[in-house]
Amino acid sequence: MDFPSYVNKPVGFDAVTGLADSQPALARHYSDMKNMYLDEEARQKLEDNGNALIYNFYDFGVPEKDSDLAFGTSIVYPGKVGDEYHMTNGHFHTILDTAEIYYCQAGYGMMMMESPEGDVLYKEMRPGQSVYVPGRYAHRSINLSDTETLITFYVFRADAGHDYGSIKEKGFRKIVVEKDGKWEVVDNPRWKA
Amino acid sequence: MDFPSYVNKPVGFDAVTGLADSQPALARHYSDMKNMYLDEEARQKLEDNGNALIYNFYDFGVPEKDSDLAFGTSIVYPGKVGDEYHMTNGHFHTILDTAEIYYCQAGYGMMMMESPEGDVLYKEMRPGQSVYVPGRYAHRSINLSDTETLITFYVFRADAGHDYGSIKEKGFRKIVVEKDGKWEVVDNPRWKA
Repeated sequence: MDFPSYVNKPVGFDAVTGLADSQPALARHYSDMKNMYLDEEARQKLEDNGNALIYNFYDFGVPEKDSDLAFGTSIVYPGKVGDEYHMTNGHFHTILDTAEIYYCQAGYGMMMMESPEGDVLYKEMRPGQSVYVPGRYAHRSINLSDTETLITFYVFRADAGHDYGSIKEKGFRKIVVEKDGKWEVVDNPRWKA
Repeated sequence: MDFPSYVNKPVGFDAVTGLADSQPALARHYSDMKNMYLDEEARQKLEDNGNALIYNFYDFGVPEKDSDLAFGTSIVYPGKVGDEYHMTNGHFHTILDTAEIYYCQAGYGMMMMESPEGDVLYKEMRPGQSVYVPGRYAHRSINLSDTETLITFYVFRADAGHDYGSIKEKGFRKIVVEKDGKWEVVDNPRWKA
């Protein structure tokens, strides 16, 4: 039988870095997240000042079939843009009602979720915890630690697809900021119905 | 919104034991695996002699929908029945072409897989490795360590279903035994076409 490489050779993910041993990660730097944080000026400054990495993730090229499963690690580095914690772009699934599972491997973070109707869910994530993103909910990983990298292992139906559009336009309804040394979920002033 | 408990509260799995913090595991003892090992006499003796646990796994009651994902940990304790390593019963999916992902968390083991046509695949599993079980392949976890517990995190489409029948009747085509202190994959003399 002819199988993809991720079947022939189990992909190994490093316990400390979260990185795969089979192929490079897809990297998102400050320059890849224009207008995604509330404080765009702070983001631009960080872009101009070394343009560090915000997060990594993977696409192993699993065929987009409803019988297959896409998987990988999401690796969000610690840091903030203004008061807002480092986060992923976040997305809906194109096949809206498909779920996703995140299994936290390292660090401390949050899964922020919202439905098209505006229902908001957020769950803290610590190592050993599995966060279930229900179908219909956009989702974004947020690193709540100042020092640790947030590493999660994710699985979704391989044909689910990614719809970044609506999030790119106005963001999530809620954002997570640091206030007096603790995280706080607040309304996103940029969001408009 | 009304969500199942595994959405409302992320399920935590202990890093050392693999056990969930939300509900009891489904336990399989020697008495639950009559005629599944080649040496039935040895198995019966182990059943009579304390009937220890071979493995644990979970069913969190995810609705059996093609948009949902079932998940949990599989925890296989070290040990042998005769020369044959501790293993799970193993199964095909009822919706045969649905895949499954195992992400190894601890221990050292093997995923044994076979298609209805007799193609056999087997992959070693170590912590940090993700084993992809392609659609159409029956699969069974085997603990290859004499001392460590094999812990894997699994995800499959929630409507995939479990077909234990054909495996229960004649087993897998290949079994894994210890020979001179190492594992070896050999033909299963009990298997008949």
